[in-house]
Amino acid sequence: MALIVQKFGGSSVGTIERIHHVASKVMHTRQEGHEVVVVVSAMQGETDRLIQLAQSLTPEPHPREYDILVSTGEQVSMALLAMALNAQNIPARSFTGHQIGILTDSSHTKARILNVKTETIKKSLADGFIVIVAGFQGINEHGDITTLGRGGSDTTAVALAAALKAEECQIYTDVEGVYTTDPRMLPEARLLPQISFEEMLEMSSLGAKVLQMRSVELASKHNLPIRVRSTFSDNPGTLVTFEEKIMQKRLVSGIAFSREEALIALTGVPNQAGVEGHILSKISDASIEIDMIAQNATDKEATDFTFTVSRKDYPKALATVQELADELGAVSPRCNPKVAKLSLVGIGMRSHAGVASNMFRALGNAGINIQMITTSEIKISVVIDEDSLDRGVRAVHEAFELDKLPLEKQQAFME
Amino acid sequence: MALIVQKFGGSSVGTIERIHHVASKVMHTRQEGHEVVVVVSAMQGETDRLIQLAQSLTPEPHPREYDILVSTGEQVSMALLAMALNAQNIPARSFTGHQIGILTDSSHTKARILNVKTETIKKSLADGFIVIVAGFQGINEHGDITTLGRGGSDTTAVALAAALKAEECQIYTDVEGVYTTDPRMLPEARLLPQISFEEMLEMSSLGAKVLQMRSVELASKHNLPIRVRSTFSDNPGTLVTFEEKIMQKRLVSGIAFSREEALIALTGVPNQAGVEGHILSKISDASIEIDMIAQNATDKEATDFTFTVSRKDYPKALATVQELADELGAVSPRCNPKVAKLSLVGIGMRSHAGVASNMFRALGNAGINIQMITTSEIKISVVIDEDSLDRGVRAVHEAFELDKLPLEKQQAFME
Repeated sequence: MALIVQKFGGSSVGTIERIHHVASKVMHTRQEGHEVVVVVSAMQGETDRLIQLAQSLTPEPHPREYDILVSTGEQVSMALLAMALNAQNIPARSFTGHQIGILTDSSHTKARILNVKTETIKKSLADGFIVIVAGFQGINEHGDITTLGRGGSDTTAVALAAALKAEECQIYTDVEGVYTTDPRMLPEARLLPQISFEEMLEMSSLGAKVLQMRSVELASKHNLPIRVRSTFSDNPGTLVTFEEKIMQKRLVSGIAFSREEALIALTGVPNQAGVEGHILSKISDASIEIDMIAQNATDKEATDFTFTVSRKDYPKALATVQELADELGAVSPRCNPKVAKLSLVGIGMRSHAGVASNMFRALGNAGINIQMITTSEIKISVVIDEDSLDRGVRAVHEAFELDKLPLEKQQAFME
Repeated sequence: MALIVQKFGGSSVGTIERIHHVASKVMHTRQEGHEVVVVVSAMQGETDRLIQLAQSLTPEPHPREYDILVSTGEQVSMALLAMALNAQNIPARSFTGHQIGILTDSSHTKARILNVKTETIKKSLADGFIVIVAGFQGINEHGDITTLGRGGSDTTAVALAAALKAEECQIYTDVEGVYTTDPRMLPEARLLPQISFEEMLEMSSLGAKVLQMRSVELASKHNLPIRVRSTFSDNPGTLVTFEEKIMQKRLVSGIAFSREEALIALTGVPNQAGVEGHILSKISDASIEIDMIAQNATDKEATDFTFTVSRKDYPKALATVQELADELGAVSPRCNPKVAKLSLVGIGMRSHAGVASNMFRALGNAGINIQMITTSEIKISVVIDEDSLDRGVRAVHEAFELDKLPLEKQQAFME
């Protein structure tokens, strides 16, 4: 008998029928002899409905009250799931973040979990109950309700699983697991049976929205395997685990991408100490978040400084940068408001120098111009024209033979 | 400076516009220099929506989970009202029953308040906040969320006002106050500027739905005046207070009535000790609630036993009574499935024997046959054909010159 934490997202509990379906999945895990703790999100559409109520009242709702309001979404779905289980004579009890004691900091609307009490859950498990917990919410030291921000239910599930020393944290979603790239863009994408925490972190941060990044960090820190799987099938999905436990090592695991980026380059920036800090603080003073940064010292006197921002911030960023260029005596900024980021991720590339050249060659052969490059230990990101993103993903996917990975049983089953 | 508790019902906070309106009323009381604690119900329709969700899941939702579910309704409206006030730079904080510490027993869906903690409220008031509390909900000794049943927000308001030793508990509703009878039935009905607790209790229990009965009991027990007034005007409404404080004493104050009753009479019941208990326990074993009971010993051997039940229980009651009649050897039960109850209420009738005869004469003159009579110290109830209820109310209203009461300023304003 093991302790399993299962998290069901908004689409999984989006209708009465789906709640019944989730109840039968939970029941099944229970009948296999496991103890089960379930974390639920709000029913699909409910959080948006509540946010709209608040915003029709005032454009800037008070953050403390906003959290009280939106946290009701999870309270509704947890009670409904507990009802569905009890109606089947499966004893179940639901609890708010408040009742469990999910302690967070006081950053309303984007709080971070500081500590999770386990007494209430352990007692109910010992009494034979399935425990259902509201995702996405907690309380701060003053007893005020807080929320973790969008996707926070994943974090709740992982934090609970870590605190309870669960065997596995299962994240149920509306896709089969983690793919080599987005299968909606590239039908040849393959489901990965396993992926390492580090790779998953890079995939998450690069726009692959299967798992919330903070939850992957937390799981990695607590040595807790996460299984991403579908609510609507019985397939095992993708296990996110330690590098050491990955059975079939791969050079690269997947391709993440994000659209809606904009690129700004400052060429001929004086090559002086502190100039980068000056540029970045100007941008950040204007409340603009920078995504990628690259710098090349072209000669002794001048350097090129390139960065990307999200497209909605582009006009504001451009104005700030124009001021900076005048001030620094740099040449006019070179800009591209319609670019995309394409990133190749894989723990195998640490020891294989050829990965970057293979990737760039594939893009070159496809006639795609690379406008910016950044790398980390297990990731290479390039910025290219948004129009060529689809072709770029396909070219790199083929170059690394990701489409030739064995078809996993679960995917065959799906088709 | 006084402490005022104000309760706003579901129709008062039913839309975003109305929440703004309530915020301005609260703000106004605050600007008059008072400390304000506000109790809110769920937005109109919201509780029904939640109940429907539960019932589409299972016909008998688990009571613990049902309470968790429906208690979100008040949590939504309290947060919205706090947002509306904060948006006007009026510091306000909302709290759930849980956060305040409204301790109830464990009778889910119809819990009773045992104790109300005041520390959190007092601290927030001292810090200059308007305090908004979710009506209708509390927690039991295990920390589980409970609800007080329909209309429970009135009870929350009165319990808070009593615990905080508030000067007045104001119940805002969609009518101007308490009338001599339902003005929808009788346009001549007059608004009462004052009414005693005892009269209000009789009116509440007899189907005048302005105030929840338990809240009147509680206010009376704690010597707390309640003011029933309209959210949609600035009129003072009706003050429910002690008999001693009523300025203009009246013989009778009002006429309450309820439809949807059914009458069952057992004639010729053996006049033996214990026979009434036997009849009542049979009825109650069938989960039928009895409203009125009257018995007349007609002679030494036999007695008449008459009672009323709600009309929906009539078929079940009839079947039970048929068995009883056979068993007791009583003659066939005499039944009327379509009766109404009309009740005259007034503290003045204690010392005036003529009230009953005046009432019966008025009904007789109107050609209305009285089928059953019960009395209490300040109330006379009769059962009549439902078809003659309107005429009956009008006849009694006129007989006691209730339509001749001075038109209150607030009512003139209304018209």
